[in-house]
Amino acid sequence: MTAQYKQTNTNGLTARNLNVAVVGGGLVGSLFALHLGKKGHTVDLYEYREDIRTAELVIGRSINLALSARGRKALAEVGLEDALLQHGIPMKGRMLHDLKGNRKIVPYDANTNQCIYSVGRKHLNEVLLDAAEKYPNIHLYFNKKLQSANLDEGEMSFIDPTTKESTHAKADLIVGCDGAYSAVRKEIVKRPGYDYSQTYIEHGYLELCIPPTKDGDFAMPHNYLHIWPRGKFMMIALPNQDRTWTVTLFMPFTNFNSIKCDGDLLKFFRTYFPDAIDLIGRERLVKDFFKTRPQSLVMIKCKPYNVGGKAVIIGDAAHAMVPFYGQGMNAGFEDCTVLTELFNEHGSDVDRILAEFSNTRWEDAHSICDLAMYNYVEMRDLVTKRSYLFRKKLDELLYWMLPNTWVPLYNSVSFSHMRYSKCIANRKWQDKILTRVLYCCSITAVAAAGYFGYKYGNMDLVQHYSSSVLQLLKLK
Amino acid sequence: MTAQYKQTNTNGLTARNLNVAVVGGGLVGSLFALHLGKKGHTVDLYEYREDIRTAELVIGRSINLALSARGRKALAEVGLEDALLQHGIPMKGRMLHDLKGNRKIVPYDANTNQCIYSVGRKHLNEVLLDAAEKYPNIHLYFNKKLQSANLDEGEMSFIDPTTKESTHAKADLIVGCDGAYSAVRKEIVKRPGYDYSQTYIEHGYLELCIPPTKDGDFAMPHNYLHIWPRGKFMMIALPNQDRTWTVTLFMPFTNFNSIKCDGDLLKFFRTYFPDAIDLIGRERLVKDFFKTRPQSLVMIKCKPYNVGGKAVIIGDAAHAMVPFYGQGMNAGFEDCTVLTELFNEHGSDVDRILAEFSNTRWEDAHSICDLAMYNYVEMRDLVTKRSYLFRKKLDELLYWMLPNTWVPLYNSVSFSHMRYSKCIANRKWQDKILTRVLYCCSITAVAAAGYFGYKYGNMDLVQHYSSSVLQLLKLK
Repeated sequence: MTAQYKQTNTNGLTARNLNVAVVGGGLVGSLFALHLGKKGHTVDLYEYREDIRTAELVIGRSINLALSARGRKALAEVGLEDALLQHGIPMKGRMLHDLKGNRKIVPYDANTNQCIYSVGRKHLNEVLLDAAEKYPNIHLYFNKKLQSANLDEGEMSFIDPTTKESTHAKADLIVGCDGAYSAVRKEIVKRPGYDYSQTYIEHGYLELCIPPTKDGDFAMPHNYLHIWPRGKFMMIALPNQDRTWTVTLFMPFTNFNSIKCDGDLLKFFRTYFPDAIDLIGRERLVKDFFKTRPQSLVMIKCKPYNVGGKAVIIGDAAHAMVPFYGQGMNAGFEDCTVLTELFNEHGSDVDRILAEFSNTRWEDAHSICDLAMYNYVEMRDLVTKRSYLFRKKLDELLYWMLPNTWVPLYNSVSFSHMRYSKCIANRKWQDKILTRVLYCCSITAVAAAGYFGYKYGNMDLVQHYSSSVLQLLKLK
Repeated sequence: MTAQYKQTNTNGLTARNLNVAVVGGGLVGSLFALHLGKKGHTVDLYEYREDIRTAELVIGRSINLALSARGRKALAEVGLEDALLQHGIPMKGRMLHDLKGNRKIVPYDANTNQCIYSVGRKHLNEVLLDAAEKYPNIHLYFNKKLQSANLDEGEMSFIDPTTKESTHAKADLIVGCDGAYSAVRKEIVKRPGYDYSQTYIEHGYLELCIPPTKDGDFAMPHNYLHIWPRGKFMMIALPNQDRTWTVTLFMPFTNFNSIKCDGDLLKFFRTYFPDAIDLIGRERLVKDFFKTRPQSLVMIKCKPYNVGGKAVIIGDAAHAMVPFYGQGMNAGFEDCTVLTELFNEHGSDVDRILAEFSNTRWEDAHSICDLAMYNYVEMRDLVTKRSYLFRKKLDELLYWMLPNTWVPLYNSVSFSHMRYSKCIANRKWQDKILTRVLYCCSITAVAAAGYFGYKYGNMDLVQHYSSSVLQLLKLK
């Protein structure tokens, strides 16, 4: 084992072995522990919950996640991509359910059929922890909740939530992977001149479940992410390995609050999701809906991510986002890739590694936070619009014609490693091109109309073209 | 005095007299205490500094402020507008200094010559505190720093920073007017689902001073806000009653840090502000520049502003902004007007008053925060651009032709009481109209060219127009 991880400490740089404390043993924490362990660093991973591998199911957190290119790459770096793809369920597009229960497929990538993968959170976390445990230089500590930290000195105090016992630790580097309500970030926010924002959306979410059919099969075509887009709100469903579906209803808290009894709920479902009642089952729907309260959704942006060369935050701790692009985990995993590449490049010059990570990564993180916010509108509303579908077809055509030049937004985010900020810039550039083409066509059309109108004495033609052009301009 | 303030408790509503704690005795706190005192409420004002009327000058905070329409209205409501206008120095426009020392005037309002007023912070605060002290139902407490508060119960603990003595107080309503680093807001931010952001800009500021001439006169024409716009940074100067000028240099911290000695400083000034060296005086420039460190500039946005009917934050505590629109104080004063109008409307239904204030005000506050950020670019860079000056002239013309319809952005912000959010919407509408007009003209021009080109067999004309149109479109 020692030989195995020593091999990867490369690049001819004399890399000092660091004593790293990873705070948070969720998806990003356990993956980054693996990345660091593989490089030969000594890693102590502190998780405030009990060991998920022996624990009951965590209530209230989303059960499945959409794994795409960025996440896959970070998993591949520690040799876990294939195992997880085999477990995951590929989703090759969105399947839209209309009010009558009719279904329509909108593929993610009509040209090359790339997929995203529905993966169970618990399974993924278990695989990562199992792999981490195999490294002799990675040590896992559960029931260790960070109480306070001196980030300049690398000192931490933990408390065991069950026994109330305190422990102290010291590290060369503290990595905060402790999620949207990060205790490590709370220490960083106190520092002067720190940029920080937390934004809650007025929508909450609540999870329901579609069981397998009597024959033990999936109740719907399982290679799709199912969406019931309803304009101001929506419901989605992702397939699980056990042939159940995790259904998530997203809508304004005011709408949740207006559903007070079984009657309200069934009326609401009969109006907006009639086909889902039979899929979920009436009894189960009522039971699950009233079992938990809707959860809130927060976006967190901040910068910088580091305190000198002593501490850094990654994953949700650095950039929590709303879940509508399926990029929360992927972005957190990509943080691991980016940091690991910087470790490869700069050896153990941690000051430089963390400064460079923070300087370049915040812009991408802010970009995906914004894209995730935008995608809620796309998923719940735009997907049903003719203009959206037209643009999607146009993008597909151009992507097919110019596969290296015209990468549509969704593809660049989910199926490429293009920097998130570049994905947005790229889309803006595409919009600009299309607008220019539109105006040039308009002007040419009117000029031609003026010309031929005069030539053939047919001024109706001029009028007709002019009004078409005005129509087009109004579309802007 | 009792009779005087009882009169204003009107509207036929049975207004319960409240016991209000105003935390913060700066400009907004002392003004709002006056507003409340005038309505007959019992007001305890707690200021953590000593009484500014007997204190030494506070170092490092901006000395003078630009009073405009919104601030004037709030002062007028407590009978103080005229006194302060007489003290203030009217500024009817910007006077731009170029690299050669040439000066150019850009009026704020070429049509009606409206002015903003340079007013001293200390003087204004003193006038407000003097006026507050005259009300028997307003009590001023200095050296009371808020330590903690239970906002649901209206309970507060204060500490005297000099004697370390603790005091406790209870109120029906707590009003946080304690500035950008508000202690009241710190209590509110802890509440679940709270939206909060703090953004520091990469520029700092440092204050200098231009003394009067030997004859005791202003060293520059005094009815202008002087600007030295230099693209990436700028210097401004506002006139004071004592015929000095408060000069403020805004620039990136990296530029400040690169000036390490007298030689660096003089070289920098000779390159960018040559005419200012003599105005400030070489010796004074060096002394003042190295006396203090550049201060940082923060923008704070949050919502909601209230905790039920028990607590509310206003002024910088609710919406700190960068100083480039001269609206920080004016926006805080307008908070007082808005709240007072809600008190007039809803009697002492404080729950409703605070909820309505918070629901409507945050959007305006966020708008002026954004405008202030934008205006830095305008002041330091755009003012020197031909396109900016062209648009300004066009706006002036349209404003003159359509005084009720086409109110330019600066006028709507500084010389009207239009909601800040409406000011932005209004400007966007104007931009849209102008873009449409531009495109319609382009299309008409090309159509006409096509027509006449064919008619007279002169296709050069068509080419000429077409290229003009393309030029115009590129401008977008």
